[in-house]
Amino acid sequence: MRATVLHAPRDIRLDEVADPQLVHDTDAIVRVVASCVCGSDLWPYRGIHPPAHPVRIGHEFVGIVESVGAGVSTIAPGDFVIAPFMYADNTCLLCRHGVHTSCPQGGIWGRPDRQGLDNDGGQGEIVRVPQADGTLVATPTQPDQAMVAHLLTLSDVFPTGHHAALAAGVTAGSNVVVVGDGAVGLSAVLAAKRLGAASVIAMSRHEDRQRLAKQFGADHVVAERGKAGAAQVKEMFDGIGADHVLECVGTKESMEQAIRSARPGGRIGYVGIPHEAVIDLPTMFGRNIGIGGGVAPARAYIEELLPDVLAGTVRPGDVFDLTLPLDRVADGYRAMDERTAIKSMLTV
Amino acid sequence: MRATVLHAPRDIRLDEVADPQLVHDTDAIVRVVASCVCGSDLWPYRGIHPPAHPVRIGHEFVGIVESVGAGVSTIAPGDFVIAPFMYADNTCLLCRHGVHTSCPQGGIWGRPDRQGLDNDGGQGEIVRVPQADGTLVATPTQPDQAMVAHLLTLSDVFPTGHHAALAAGVTAGSNVVVVGDGAVGLSAVLAAKRLGAASVIAMSRHEDRQRLAKQFGADHVVAERGKAGAAQVKEMFDGIGADHVLECVGTKESMEQAIRSARPGGRIGYVGIPHEAVIDLPTMFGRNIGIGGGVAPARAYIEELLPDVLAGTVRPGDVFDLTLPLDRVADGYRAMDERTAIKSMLTV
Repeated sequence: MRATVLHAPRDIRLDEVADPQLVHDTDAIVRVVASCVCGSDLWPYRGIHPPAHPVRIGHEFVGIVESVGAGVSTIAPGDFVIAPFMYADNTCLLCRHGVHTSCPQGGIWGRPDRQGLDNDGGQGEIVRVPQADGTLVATPTQPDQAMVAHLLTLSDVFPTGHHAALAAGVTAGSNVVVVGDGAVGLSAVLAAKRLGAASVIAMSRHEDRQRLAKQFGADHVVAERGKAGAAQVKEMFDGIGADHVLECVGTKESMEQAIRSARPGGRIGYVGIPHEAVIDLPTMFGRNIGIGGGVAPARAYIEELLPDVLAGTVRPGDVFDLTLPLDRVADGYRAMDERTAIKSMLTV
Repeated sequence: MRATVLHAPRDIRLDEVADPQLVHDTDAIVRVVASCVCGSDLWPYRGIHPPAHPVRIGHEFVGIVESVGAGVSTIAPGDFVIAPFMYADNTCLLCRHGVHTSCPQGGIWGRPDRQGLDNDGGQGEIVRVPQADGTLVATPTQPDQAMVAHLLTLSDVFPTGHHAALAAGVTAGSNVVVVGDGAVGLSAVLAAKRLGAASVIAMSRHEDRQRLAKQFGADHVVAERGKAGAAQVKEMFDGIGADHVLECVGTKESMEQAIRSARPGGRIGYVGIPHEAVIDLPTMFGRNIGIGGGVAPARAYIEELLPDVLAGTVRPGDVFDLTLPLDRVADGYRAMDERTAIKSMLTV
C-alpha cells in the first residue's frame, strides 16, 4: 500500500510500504476513505521537531473496516468508521473519566506503541487500528460522499473545538471569544454556538476565515490582535471582557491575548499545543482567571457530536477548503504551510 | 487609637495613630473586636517584599459599628460586622459576577485607595471602612464571645479555603487532596467536607496540624511531600490521582506537588499567592489538568458560610491556636513566623 512518510523538513512523500496485518486480536484493518492534514502535522514538517528518521504521519481518518481480530465484537467488516486521533480501550478508569488521551492502552497513530510495535499513520491507504472496539465509532449506515468531510472532522478538529468550549465552561447563553482562526479555532466557534453560546467573537485578520467563522455562527469578528484586540473584546463584552475564552493556537502571543481578553473570574479553554506558551500566574491569580483543556479526548465526544453531524445541523466539514487525492499529499501540506488553505482533505 | 505598623522586616509595633474619621458618606467607622495575622502578612514581615516606609498592616477583622456616613443604609451603629479582606461596592458588574476582589471601587486594608487616600489596617483598634454597605456583613444578633473566632475566619481564611474547593470543582462525593497544612489548607479541608467531599487527603508532616485536619474532617493524612507524597496520593485514589487538588501554599514545590497529585482530567484550585510558582504547561496540556482560583472574593461567600458558622455545624475558628491581646501583636507574628502557631488571633 501507499502511505505518507515525512523524510525531512518539507520533504514529505507518498511511499510504497508493506500492507498492515492484524497483530493483536483486538486489532482491525481499515481501508482509509479520507484523511487530512492537521496544524500539528506542520510542526515536524517545518522542522520545529524534525524527525530523526523517516516517519509515518497523519492521525485523522475515516474508512471502511476490512477485517477484525478475534477479540473485536462491536466493529465488523464493511462498517464505515471514524478513528479519533488517539486510540484507546474506552473501558479503563481514565477512559470512563473521559480522558481517553491518557488511556494506558492508548497511543497515537504513526508512532510506536508502548511495546515498540509500529503503528500506521492516518495519511495512507490502510491502517491497522489497535483497540478497535474502544477506538472506532461506526456510523449507523453508509454515509454518502458529501457527508465524508463532515465525519472526518470528528477525528480531531471538531471535538477539539468542542473540548476548548467545554473546558472554558461554555453553556447556553455564554459570551465567548475565540483566539485563533485556524481550523481548530473555527471549529471552536461552531462548537460554542452548538452549545448555545449567545455571543461569540472570532478573532481573525483573514477575510476567508472571517467568512467561515460567520458561517459557523460567529456573531462578531475582531481583526485586531494582541493588546488592541483584547481591548476591543473587553469593550464589546460590557467593558470587562469575556466570560469564556477559547485559546486555539498555543503560542506565547495567543496565550497572552487569551488572558487579556478574559474578564476577572473568567475561564480559558486551551487546545493549541503549547509552543513556548507560558502562563503569567500572578496575573491569573489576581484576576481569578482559570484555565483548562489540553489534548482533546476526541473519542469521548464522537457519540455526542455524531447525530448533529449526520442530521446536517452542523457542517464542520466546511473547514476543508482544499481536497486532493492522497498522491498529492505534499501539495496539501504546502498549501497549509503557506496558509493558502485552512485545512486539506486527502481522498483515497 | 493604637494600630499595628510594620516598620521594617521583623520590626512590628503597636503605635499610637490618629483616630479614623468618616471621609466619604459611604464610609463606616468600626471598633475592632478581634483581628488576626495572615500567612500573607508574613511576606513583608520576613522582608520578602520589605516596606519602603512604615505601613499599617492586617486585613482580617470583626467589630462593632460606631458610626456611618449619610449614604450608608444597610449597616447601623451597634451592628456586629464581618469585614472581608478586601472592600468592594457589591453592586458593580464584577461584584455581581462574584469577583469582589476586582471591584473598581474596591481595595485592600492598609493601602492607599485609588485616589491616594490612606486606609486603616485591620490589626488596630478602629478602622474606617469604605463602601460600608457593600463591604460589611452584619450578624443577625450580637454573637457571644466564643463565636467571635469563628466569625473572624469569615474575613479571609475560611472563604479562601472555600474558594479553593469551588475553583477545583469540589461537590458532593468528590475525592480531594489538599496541599498545604497552614491555616488556609486546613480551612480548605473543612470547606471541602462542608461541600460534601467523600474523601479528603490532607498533606501534612506536623502532628498538631494533622490533628486539626482530621478534626476538620480529613479522611486521610499523607506525611510525605513532593514526588513521594504525590505517588501516595495517586495510589490512594484508584492509582490515578485526585479529581480535585486544593493548592494552598503558592510555592514552586507546592504547585509541582499539586500537579503531580492530580489525575489526568483533574482540576486544581489554587489560593496560595504565587511566589515563584510556575505551571508546566506542556505537562498540564498532555494530562488535561485544569487550574482555577486566585485571590479569594471572600465577600461573595460570607452570606453562604455564615449560617453554618452561627449554627456551629462548622468550627473554622479552631484554626486559631494562639490568642493574644492586640498589644502583643509582635508575639503573634513571631509565633507564626517560627511556626509555633498555626494562626494568631488578636483581641482588642
